[in-house]
Amino acid sequence: MAGAAAAAARSVVPTERFAARTAGMTASEIRALFAVASRPEVVSLAGGMPNLAALPLDSLAVEVADLISRDGQVALQYGSAQGVPALREQICEVMALEGIRADPDDVVVTVGSQMALDLVTRIFCDPGDVVLAEGPSYVGALGSFAAYQAQVVHVAMDEHGLVPELLREALQTLATQGITPKFLYTIPNFHNPAGVTLAVERRAEVLEICTTYGVGVVEDNPYGLLGFSGRTYPALRSLDRDVVYLGSFSKTFASGLRVGWALVPPAVRDRLVLAAESATLCPPSFTQMLVSRYLAGHEWRTQIKTFAEAYRDRRDALLQALETYLPDGCTWNVPDGGFYVWLTVPEGVDTKAMLPRAVTARVAYASGTGFYADGFGSRQLRLSYCYPTPERITEGVRRLAGVLEAELDVMRTFGSSARQVGPAPRNGPQTPSPHTP
Amino acid sequence: MAGAAAAAARSVVPTERFAARTAGMTASEIRALFAVASRPEVVSLAGGMPNLAALPLDSLAVEVADLISRDGQVALQYGSAQGVPALREQICEVMALEGIRADPDDVVVTVGSQMALDLVTRIFCDPGDVVLAEGPSYVGALGSFAAYQAQVVHVAMDEHGLVPELLREALQTLATQGITPKFLYTIPNFHNPAGVTLAVERRAEVLEICTTYGVGVVEDNPYGLLGFSGRTYPALRSLDRDVVYLGSFSKTFASGLRVGWALVPPAVRDRLVLAAESATLCPPSFTQMLVSRYLAGHEWRTQIKTFAEAYRDRRDALLQALETYLPDGCTWNVPDGGFYVWLTVPEGVDTKAMLPRAVTARVAYASGTGFYADGFGSRQLRLSYCYPTPERITEGVRRLAGVLEAELDVMRTFGSSARQVGPAPRNGPQTPSPHTP
Repeated sequence: MAGAAAAAARSVVPTERFAARTAGMTASEIRALFAVASRPEVVSLAGGMPNLAALPLDSLAVEVADLISRDGQVALQYGSAQGVPALREQICEVMALEGIRADPDDVVVTVGSQMALDLVTRIFCDPGDVVLAEGPSYVGALGSFAAYQAQVVHVAMDEHGLVPELLREALQTLATQGITPKFLYTIPNFHNPAGVTLAVERRAEVLEICTTYGVGVVEDNPYGLLGFSGRTYPALRSLDRDVVYLGSFSKTFASGLRVGWALVPPAVRDRLVLAAESATLCPPSFTQMLVSRYLAGHEWRTQIKTFAEAYRDRRDALLQALETYLPDGCTWNVPDGGFYVWLTVPEGVDTKAMLPRAVTARVAYASGTGFYADGFGSRQLRLSYCYPTPERITEGVRRLAGVLEAELDVMRTFGSSARQVGPAPRNGPQTPSPHTP
Repeated sequence: MAGAAAAAARSVVPTERFAARTAGMTASEIRALFAVASRPEVVSLAGGMPNLAALPLDSLAVEVADLISRDGQVALQYGSAQGVPALREQICEVMALEGIRADPDDVVVTVGSQMALDLVTRIFCDPGDVVLAEGPSYVGALGSFAAYQAQVVHVAMDEHGLVPELLREALQTLATQGITPKFLYTIPNFHNPAGVTLAVERRAEVLEICTTYGVGVVEDNPYGLLGFSGRTYPALRSLDRDVVYLGSFSKTFASGLRVGWALVPPAVRDRLVLAAESATLCPPSFTQMLVSRYLAGHEWRTQIKTFAEAYRDRRDALLQALETYLPDGCTWNVPDGGFYVWLTVPEGVDTKAMLPRAVTARVAYASGTGFYADGFGSRQLRLSYCYPTPERITEGVRRLAGVLEAELDVMRTFGSSARQVGPAPRNGPQTPSPHTP
């Protein structure tokens, strides 16, 4: 039969049949170890899964049953590409907590803010275009930039976030090459992975620099409401209506619903909606309507406080364990919100090379090079304190310390790649920069 | 304050700051009329919304409440980028109904099959690449191809679907120009918008032609289980394991959950998963788990039969009304499944120009040019019988007939654009091709 013959004749897809952009699509560094790292005996400080233990499942169950019973014909049907109108109004209320005044017409609901990020890149970036991002930056953003063949130029942070002077320098250097970046991608609050927050007094300056150089700003803010002091910061978007703002319910409610959004200037909105339509037709009506009911009928602000308290306890456990167990020569930051601590290990230790040994010792982390587009980060790693219990976090750090000690032992014995310059600094939370080389 | 100054200084985004691909992103022709066309007094034969009236909402409400109560910590959490494993196994059972033998490892769950289509285009198509598609073709596919700057070459259908001889000719012509299309995009069953089904005896031949020319095949099959005779057709993927197959629960269960999938050869899978990860991180766990429970606990095959019967009744109403009301010179096909009838109107009538007048007369349709990448289709339009009741369908066609009569009257009076060649053909369901110029 011809079909069978055809099946036999056809071969696997030759690589050259794929689009050029697939060359930039690479698996994250932890993926190869995923099967091992996700075993229950491994303490994972690698992932960014929010801790949902505090969610009121019983009342949510009642809510969702009622949603299907009453509004099932709408919730199970296609909706608008831009998102459910009632939810877009509520999203404006959520953003108001950070000083944003927005029109629901300018909100586009997406399948997580990752989709918003992907689509913003789609409508702005041609292959070869330059995007600025903090160094380090969110691995999912780097993935989207690579998928659209945009080039990333990193700008370093210090303990107060992105350094305005370095941003200006980077733009000046690019300008001499005739390059205007398409936008600055920034995570101002409780940065992923660096854990730092952009100082309030720097915010207007960052916007001003971008304006001077004709560069757009994309503000990604999934953690802004998860500050440990209860304080929120004015969003960049609250200072400048041309900022593209990305938000998410993944960390403040439930990541498995995949409901995020973009708030964009009207000139961007129509293109973004068209891009969203070709990406998924529309976001799921069902999950949007569930989020809308949750916001309308539950004490969501109190719930966010409960989440933040749980994360603060976990952060404290992590910091305490780092102080207690880590060998000399390690530095890290003290985040006052969000999920992450960014750790610099002693010179000579390669965090990517060490990862398989860490997983063997039953602790996982995210090695630093994944958060840079330029190969930097081999002395860094990200520790996520969001998901495991404080006890598990402590045990995880104890194991990590053992792995680090063993690395340092080998280095001392064989003197191989260790280039010890002077005495090792005392360990502990320190300035400067999480971008310390 | 600097921030306020910046806000004042920045202007709207200049068009040249957008990516080149946005030039190909255009709103569908009905969108401008959407606000009017969606008023309740308008009979919409334009949309492709499935009719969900038959869904067992009460038992679904119980199911979803139990899902949250028991498995909420998983359902509300991030999941794998490839999709929930249990659902991927069930998807293989669904595909088995059309003769497909597949490994769940080769299934990638997506946010509707639209996302699968978008991602398949993303990983295969560089700007300028050629894609083959039936003429007419699904508007959402044309949108994705345009978003990745791929060029579409249409291949005509007749009443037995894609014409193998014309496919061979198109490939030969392209080959003389040194062009190998990346893939043939085809909807073999109950085509959108043409309503026709690819004859079984043509299927192996189509595959063989593509193999000969080194062209991949992307099979889009959202309607395959919605045949009115109860018959299913062997999927192209059942004849050739290298076919990329796209499936969806939007028409067989609930479109508002946005759960679709791609079944791909192993050589494609890893790239597709990476692309999916950068697009949305992962599909919503919650909606996937709900579909999985529905498939496990409900008589889904019986439900699909119920859906198909409702659609058959609606098709019958539409065909009856077309016979009764339409003026001479109209031709259409008789679909034996799916949602659509493709109508050719008398020469001289421009369906796109007529649409505002139709909406004023309180009936909406999708004009034909939207289903072609090349401006063809001005004498065609798509009628969807899926959503309105049979009574409303009949009324809609009566109104459409009135609008057509008025157009023809104007043409007869002013003799303007009408190029009447011989007597108008008798109206009714006819061969040949829905691609009749």
